[in-house]
Amino acid sequence: MALPTYTYTRRVRYRECDPMGVAYHTHYLDYFEEARTEALRSVGLPYKSLEDGGIIMPVVEATLRYRASAYYDDLLEIETVFAELPRVRVPIDYTVRRTGEEAVLATGRVVLCFVDTERGRPVPAPEVVRAAFETAAEAA
Amino acid sequence: MALPTYTYTRRVRYRECDPMGVAYHTHYLDYFEEARTEALRSVGLPYKSLEDGGIIMPVVEATLRYRASAYYDDLLEIETVFAELPRVRVPIDYTVRRTGEEAVLATGRVVLCFVDTERGRPVPAPEVVRAAFETAAEAA
Amino acid sequence: MALPTYTYTRRVRYRECDPMGVAYHTHYLDYFEEARTEALRSVGLPYKSLEDGGIIMPVVEATLRYRASAYYDDLLEIETVFAELPRVRVPIDYTVRRTGEEAVLATGRVVLCFVDTERGRPVPAPEVVRAAFETAAEAA
Amino acid sequence: MALPTYTYTRRVRYRECDPMGVAYHTHYLDYFEEARTEALRSVGLPYKSLEDGGIIMPVVEATLRYRASAYYDDLLEIETVFAELPRVRVPIDYTVRRTGEEAVLATGRVVLCFVDTERGRPVPAPEVVRAAFETAAEAA
Repeated sequence: MALPTYTYTRRVRYRECDPMGVAYHTHYLDYFEEARTEALRSVGLPYKSLEDGGIIMPVVEATLRYRASAYYDDLLEIETVFAELPRVRVPIDYTVRRTGEEAVLATGRVVLCFVDTERGRPVPAPEVVRAAFETAAEAA
Repeated sequence: MALPTYTYTRRVRYRECDPMGVAYHTHYLDYFEEARTEALRSVGLPYKSLEDGGIIMPVVEATLRYRASAYYDDLLEIETVFAELPRVRVPIDYTVRRTGEEAVLATGRVVLCFVDTERGRPVPAPEVVRAAFETAAEAA
Repeated sequence: MALPTYTYTRRVRYRECDPMGVAYHTHYLDYFEEARTEALRSVGLPYKSLEDGGIIMPVVEATLRYRASAYYDDLLEIETVFAELPRVRVPIDYTVRRTGEEAVLATGRVVLCFVDTERGRPVPAPEVVRAAFETAAEAA
Repeated sequence: MALPTYTYTRRVRYRECDPMGVAYHTHYLDYFEEARTEALRSVGLPYKSLEDGGIIMPVVEATLRYRASAYYDDLLEIETVFAELPRVRVPIDYTVRRTGEEAVLATGRVVLCFVDTERGRPVPAPEVVRAAFETAAEAA
């Protein structure tokens, strides 16, 4: 089954740049959050609707590799790839480039899981999530 | 009645500094939040206990004046003064200096109110707040 | 002379929402920064080009009034108005609404000035700034 | 040679907590930055003095594992361990607990390198760094 990908475009803001003039490393996790939110929306799964349905997706693991700097006012493209069909864990991969450039500035993987807020514990991917990914795969 | 004051010490972090090498202006509201939290704790009112008791204190107004820059790794002192006895609104004043220096780097006022989370609307200062301020005044 | 206005659209992110489920008050200064950056770009003055030309615009004053909450995933519109022609000080006004709604969530004013980085002190609006505002006024 | 360790204590702030009431995952990289800064200061290497000497330490890699939530106003202890003597890369390990509790909330590793700002490229650990670690080892 074809897994959805999504490219999120995001400008580097002044407050995100450090005294070296580059996007400080901690903000990449925030960029990934934004990219993931829009990637989920693009497959018909706005995170807010999951949450309203009693499902949250906490982050259990994150890995980041920084290869080159992003500068103030750079327009970044964050390519977001679902590494596998969401089952118990949801690994999502990110590649950051400047718009229109080949060079990779950073890569990352963030692994999430599903938690039922009523019972307060991990659950497998709810039916609505699997259905959305199947629909996205058919459309691809 | 003597109003409580509190001096909160806080180091400027790298991620808070911008390409000019100075603490970016938006972080001062965060410094004020931390100072206010510790000031309330010092009069026996940890914000968490207020919240657990069904009272939250949203910010309704904030004013900041920036006079001079704070630099990376500076140790700041944020003098926190309750401008008046908490009734309906709680105005709190802040003055930021480098530790051991006279020069004022920034000043601010943040006005909060009390909201009863059950009824979802503003209420006057709860009894526990007035009692804490009276005790603090007697101890002063 | 007609002064430029700009409407910046910005989604409320999860990391910006507090335990009350609303956008935490300190982030509005960040929303204003983003809105101002895009407003300046829209009149042909990307902040980066000012900075490259040896001019920075530090914030000297900020005022915010919070009227109603913004929630997670809300799409906000930040109306950005240059309050007067940039001379020595540049006051910019902001009004925050949810897209498509009349109700005002927050208002603010941020006052900036121009600083010549070589001499390290305030200067009047450089010629390039005045020219850009005149061109924008003629186009309006 | 005994490698330095350092325990940094840090309170979870309101603005760091998300609608679930827990410290949002992206802030742990900031906690690690603060812990690392104080750990370096404790071995006589304030980061500011390195930077003043023409050496910066960019982050090249970061890994985080989240096991349990930290809540608003929790007092966290971040145990900071230099995984090996700084040579070309500087891997530093972090373990986050609530003060006075055994349970691990999160672990992480952040790998930094040394860059000579004048030449703009990676260099091995400067002599001042090796000397500081040797002195710390003798004192241990």
